[in-house]
Order: sequence, then structure tokens, then C-alpha cells
Amino acid sequence: MSDSAYKIIELVGTSALSWEDAAKNVVETAGSTLHDLRIAEVTRLDMTIEDGKVKSYRARVRVSFRLED
Amino acid sequence: MSDSAYKIIELVGTSALSWEDAAKNVVETAGSTLHDLRIAEVTRLDMTIEDGKVKSYRARVRVSFRLED
Amino acid sequence: MSDSAYKIIELVGTSALSWEDAAKNVVETAGSTLHDLRIAEVTRLDMTIEDGKVKSYRARVRVSFRLED
Amino acid sequence: MSDSAYKIIELVGTSALSWEDAAKNVVETAGSTLHDLRIAEVTRLDMTIEDGKVKSYRARVRVSFRLED
Amino acid sequence: MSDSAYKIIELVGTSALSWEDAAKNVVETAGSTLHDLRIAEVTRLDMTIEDGKVKSYRARVRVSFRLED
Amino acid sequence: MSDSAYKIIELVGTSALSWEDAAKNVVETAGSTLHDLRIAEVTRLDMTIEDGKVKSYRARVRVSFRLED
Amino acid sequence: MSDSAYKIIELVGTSALSWEDAAKNVVETAGSTLHDLRIAEVTRLDMTIEDGKVKSYRARVRVSFRLED
Amino acid sequence: MSDSAYKIIELVGTSALSWEDAAKNVVETAGSTLHDLRIAEVTRLDMTIEDGKVKSYRARVRVSFRLED
Amino acid sequence: MSDSAYKIIELVGTSALSWEDAAKNVVETAGSTLHDLRIAEVTRLDMTIEDGKVKSYRARVRVSFRLED
Amino acid sequence: MSDSAYKIIELVGTSALSWEDAAKNVVETAGSTLHDLRIAEVTRLDMTIEDGKVKSYRARVRVSFRLED
Amino acid sequence: MSDSAYKIIELVGTSALSWEDAAKNVVETAGSTLHDLRIAEVTRLDMTIEDGKVKSYRARVRVSFRLED
Amino acid sequence: MSDSAYKIIELVGTSALSWEDAAKNVVETAGSTLHDLRIAEVTRLDMTIEDGKVKSYRARVRVSFRLED
Repeated sequence: MSDSAYKIIELVGTSALSWEDAAKNVVETAGSTLHDLRIAEVTRLDMTIEDGKVKSYRARVRVSFRLED
Repeated sequence: MSDSAYKIIELVGTSALSWEDAAKNVVETAGSTLHDLRIAEVTRLDMTIEDGKVKSYRARVRVSFRLED
Repeated sequence: MSDSAYKIIELVGTSALSWEDAAKNVVETAGSTLHDLRIAEVTRLDMTIEDGKVKSYRARVRVSFRLED
Repeated sequence: MSDSAYKIIELVGTSALSWEDAAKNVVETAGSTLHDLRIAEVTRLDMTIEDGKVKSYRARVRVSFRLED
Repeated sequence: MSDSAYKIIELVGTSALSWEDAAKNVVETAGSTLHDLRIAEVTRLDMTIEDGKVKSYRARVRVSFRLED
Repeated sequence: MSDSAYKIIELVGTSALSWEDAAKNVVETAGSTLHDLRIAEVTRLDMTIEDGKVKSYRARVRVSFRLED
Repeated sequence: MSDSAYKIIELVGTSALSWEDAAKNVVETAGSTLHDLRIAEVTRLDMTIEDGKVKSYRARVRVSFRLED
Repeated sequence: MSDSAYKIIELVGTSALSWEDAAKNVVETAGSTLHDLRIAEVTRLDMTIEDGKVKSYRARVRVSFRLED
Repeated sequence: MSDSAYKIIELVGTSALSWEDAAKNVVETAGSTLHDLRIAEVTRLDMTIEDGKVKSYRARVRVSFRLED
Repeated sequence: MSDSAYKIIELVGTSALSWEDAAKNVVETAGSTLHDLRIAEVTRLDMTIEDGKVKSYRARVRVSFRLED
Repeated sequence: MSDSAYKIIELVGTSALSWEDAAKNVVETAGSTLHDLRIAEVTRLDMTIEDGKVKSYRARVRVSFRLED
Repeated sequence: MSDSAYKIIELVGTSALSWEDAAKNVVETAGSTLHDLRIAEVTRLDMTIEDGKVKSYRARVRVSFRLED
């Protein structure tokens, strides 16, 4: 219905490869239990560093999912 | 007590009529299970469009509710 | 003249009906004593909630008025 | 295709009645000539004032439309 | 692993003493049940007022916690 | 009534002790003459420095007060 | 004293010549009646246009002034 | 009518003299073909530098113009 | 000349591969007809999701192009 | 002279006690080697957490100092 | 090379004449020792006031310069 | 100690390959001389374009490093 209710949450994914991979990991994990995910908006990108080297890429994303009726 | 703890969540309501109706729907639904809702702040208004016509009004609101002791 | 001076203030109107009504109320009240109001920009919309129900719509608006010469 | 290109534009609609009506007017007019409008996001709401009375409600919206192949 | 997933939530603590105390209260309560809290970022500070006197200090903080595997 | 009108003003308090004290000072002074203050939101914190030492803490706060009927 | 209280207001000056002139006009007018103005921060610059020509430059500035003891 | 529709565009003017001149140039050029320009809001000011010297001042402005009926 | 005029537009590219590819696609398509593109600034990154899987990466970019003399 | 040049830098102080102490520490340390510090503006407050307990308060501040002639 | 590294710094120039002069002064001074300055973006404009009169115009600008290989 | 002081700087890396590579290059170069880098936050992504083709990806990042005791 057009009267559906949604909740918005913010998640952070991490990957040693890329920001795409970081975002994809966390969204696809969330997608297995949440309803009706359609868009994930990036709200922050950063990197963790260890001993002067990049250790991981992190992507923070906002997704909305439909609340159960 | 003045030491209470609250959590803030963001919800999206939809309505074919108006943004007021969209916001009211989702807040009153949430209000039936959450404690001590007092203010809902609008953080985004948009519309969905289908075949060139407005299909629904959507209001994103932030509400805080009291955590159980 | 093109050298007029204006002051900007921020007001909050409330209404049980709608955000339009809330904004209109406070702007038209201000308009009876202030000079040369031409635009009121919405800076925040929210709702007050009581016992899980929406009690009022509130609109915060910024208006500029001309200072007396 | 997943490789489509879109352009984002910002429009302003006006109405003597409400912000919903202002936004609906301009979006449905644009929808008659632009491709694949799906969401219109509100970026600003204001009112014009004349002789101390609200004359019109204005809604600024951002829409994206698909560029022709 | 570098592929862990986190969720970000926003909490509000209150205290009659100070913003530090308000933030500490809510973070340490959350810390007893959530995994791997490391940083709490302040997103808003305010005060509640009653009869012209400050009644409590409130701190809104964002924390991220690790999702269970 | 739910149709009350409010005005929002921004004040700056200063203190040699702390930001809490700076904000409390200015809010409680304002509270003695303004109606219906309920929340003071911090919009900026800074410090003044003299000869390399902190001289005072300053807190800028926004408060709303009810306009007389 | 370090415990002084200030109020912040926002003013708009206009000039046919330049933004500097617009800001200077309104600040020096305000400076004749307000206490302890020290910094005026520009928050918006715009121009009014008439018949396709620039008619005036406008500068919006925020100033703080000391409240009377 | 109060139901007119407007489009908002962002332009950049450049000048060797000043930001006022840069903004005036681009607005008056646009004003010769667009309808009902009334306000141009500055959204960014910068300078280009060549061999350590300022070469030009640039002003980015947003203008709205009325769509043809 | 240093008095050239530019227009700024916002475009969205999509790709099944990466945000770089999404941005590159839309910029290079635009570059074939627009003058003097030099920088494309990313203003938003998101992903579309279908059946719990990432379907495409989208990059919104702002580019400026020189208006014809 | 009124033609002095300043540089702005951003520093982070930490303290086990309070945000005031964190900001004061880093500003007074910087003040011993930099010229003409007058205001330090807070740009971020956070806390580090260890084993569910607050370990330190951190304050990020922006200060400007005069460049040597 | 396309792999060059840059650092961004923020400077403040002052002038008794205009914001253009303030920005030009500080950028051209910096340009004599820094590499490859190309754009200076204005991030804040303000004025200092003394005895109710404008004493100086100040422009805060961000510039990037190339790090030595 | 918990009383350490940090400085925040903003760097720009470039790469012909990707934004990850651009950010990694500049962070790892900085990491060879700066102390205690742990997180690099992306503050801007853009691309340079030449003859209608993407020439390089640029990532602007903020890093904090520990000041020497």
C-alpha cells in the first residue's frame, strides 16, 4: 500500500579490497533479513591504517526497510 | 528521573493525501509501542511519482523514545 | 532606497491542523506589526505528540523585516 | 540497462493552497515531457507574503530524469 | 576480520551535573550489552529548563557496535 | 492553546569555569524575563585565549520563548 | 567580566555599489546603538535583479552585542 | 498567477576585477534570455591563481527563472 | 578570456561494476557535447538493491561547462 | 597592521576528566609556540571507550595563529 | 604525474579595503613559497569592528599545494 | 597517555586507476613520516577531465597524527 511504514538504519561494512566491496558486504548481509531494501546511500567513506599501511576500507550506508504489518 | 536514557530512530511514513498524514501515520503507529514520544522532527519530505503523476507523499521523521529501565 | 536595512528573525507557529496553518498563523500575526515582510522561509517542521497521538504541527520560519529609518 | 544516465534539475512550484499542491503542480507539469521521473525531493519550502497576508506557498524540488539514448 | 559489520545508533543521555556525565551514563549503559564500542561522537548538546532554571544537561551521541556473526 | 507563537533567539554566555556554567548563566538570566523557556540547544562552543592561556569558555545557545498574547 | 552575556542577531544591508558597502552600512548603523560589536560574519550574499540588470548587492551578517547589566 | 513554475540553475561568472563584477557579468548575460530573474544567490566564491598571482575572481550564483506557459 | 561564463549541472551515472565506472560513463558521455569540462565533483554515491543483492552503483557528479559565446 | 596573515589549524586534545580539560590542554600547549591565538572553536567532541567504560574525552578545536612577517 | 600528492591549508587575509584585497594578499604571499597553487576557495568572510566602525575585511581561503617529491 | 595531542591535516591523492588507489597513495606516503595514523576520512572525491576523458581520480582525506612530546 501507499501507506507503508519504513525504518532507516545506518550500517558500516569493511573490506580489504574496496569501498564497493565494503558496502556490498554489509548491504547483502542485511538484505537477507530485512524487507524491501531498494537503495543504500553512502554517508561516509574512510580507511583504517596500521603501521602506515591501509588495512581496510569502510563504507557507512543508510538503508530503509519496510516494517512488518 | 533526570538520568533517563533515550534512543533516537528515523522512520518514514507514506500517504496518498499529504505530508502531515504521512508523518502522523508513522508516528502514531510507533507511538503504540514506544515510550515517551514527545517530538517528531521532519528530516526529509519527498514524493513518489508514477507515470508522471504523484503517487504518494513521504515524510521522514526522527523520534526519540525512552529506554526501559 | 536600495540602501535599506533589514533584520532577520525566526518564529515558530503551531496548529492542530497542518504545517501550512502553523506557518500562516505566526507569519500573519508578525505581519501586523513588522514592515515589509515578503518571504518566510521554513527552517524546521516538527510535531508534538501526547499519549501517542499528534497534538500539534509546528513550523519554524525565518522572516526579514525592514528597520525603521 | 543498468548503465543509464540521468540529469538532476531543481524546480519551484507555487500554489495558493498548500505545499503539497505547489510541489504536485510543478512535478506533474515536468512529468509530461521528462523521462522516468520517480522521486521528487523537497529542498526548500517558503511562502510569499503581501500586505501582511500569505499569498502563496512555494516548494522547491529536485527531480532526476533519464537522458535519451 | 577486516570484513566485520557494524550498526550505528544514536542515544541521548541526561544528567543534572554536566554534559560529560550525561554522555558517560548512556554510553556505559549501552556498553554493557553491545559489542566493541570504541568511540562515541557527540551530535547535539542541550539543556532542559524548568521555571527558568536548568534542570538537566542532555548529550546526544552516536556509537557503532559490531553485529553478531 | 496549541496555536501559540514562539520566537527563537540566540545568546552567548561566558564563564571562567566550564561550558555548562557559561550556558547556565545566560539561560537563567534570560529565563527571568522570557516566557516558557523549555530547551536551550547548544549551537557553538569556543574559548577565548589570552597570553597563551584559556581565559573563558563561551557557549552559544538557541532558546525559544512564547510571545505575549 | 568574563561572565558577560551576548545576544546574536542577523541583519541585512543593501547597496548599489558592492557587498562590502552593503555590509558596512548595516553594521555601522547597528554599531551606533549596540554595545561591544567586534566581529560581523557574512552568512549570505545575494543580488536583486530588475529588468535583467543588477539593482543592488545584499549582505546578510551576524553580529553579537553585549546585553546591558 | 500564483501557480507559476520556476527552474533553478547555477552559473559561474569570472572577472579580473572583483566578485561583484564576476557575478554581475553572468547574471546580466543570463538576464537577456531568461524570464523574471529577481534574485541571484551566491553559493561559492573562489579565485584562480597563475604563477603565484590571482588571475581571476569567480562567483557561482543560483538564479531562478520562470518557465514559459 | 577571464570573463567566460559557465553553467553547472548535476548528472547521475550508473554501473554494475563500480562507482568509478558509473562516474566515468556519465562524464565521458557528457564530455562529447559540452565545452571545457575540467573537474567532476562527486556529490552522492549510492547503490540500487534488488532481491537483497546490489544491482548497480550510482554516482552523482557536478560538472561545469562553458557557455557558448 | 590590518594586513596581517593568519593560518588556521585543527588540533585534538584528550583528557580523562572533561572536554574543557581536553581543549585547554591542547590549546595551551599550542599557545606556547604560536602567535596571537585568540579564539579556539570546538568542531567536534567525542569519547573513547574501552571495555564498555569511557577512557578519555576528546575535543577537536580550530585555532588561527599569525604568520611571521 | 597523475599520482601527485597535495596538502590543503586554510589561510586568513585581512585588508582595510575589500574582501578581494584581503584574499589576494594572503594568497599571493603564500604563492611565493608554495608549489602549484591553482584555486583558492573562500570559506568565510567577516569584518572586524572597532568603536562602531568597520576596521578590516577578512577572507578565509582554502588552497592546495603540491607536496615535494 | 590519555593526554596526547593530535593535529588534523587534509591531503589530496591522485590516481589514474581508482579512488581507493588515490587515497591509499597519499595516506601511505604520509604514514612514513607521521605518527600514529589510524583513520583517514574521505572528505571529497572528484575527477579531472581532459579532452572529454577522465584523466585522474582524486580523493581528499583527513588524517590525524600525534604531535611529538
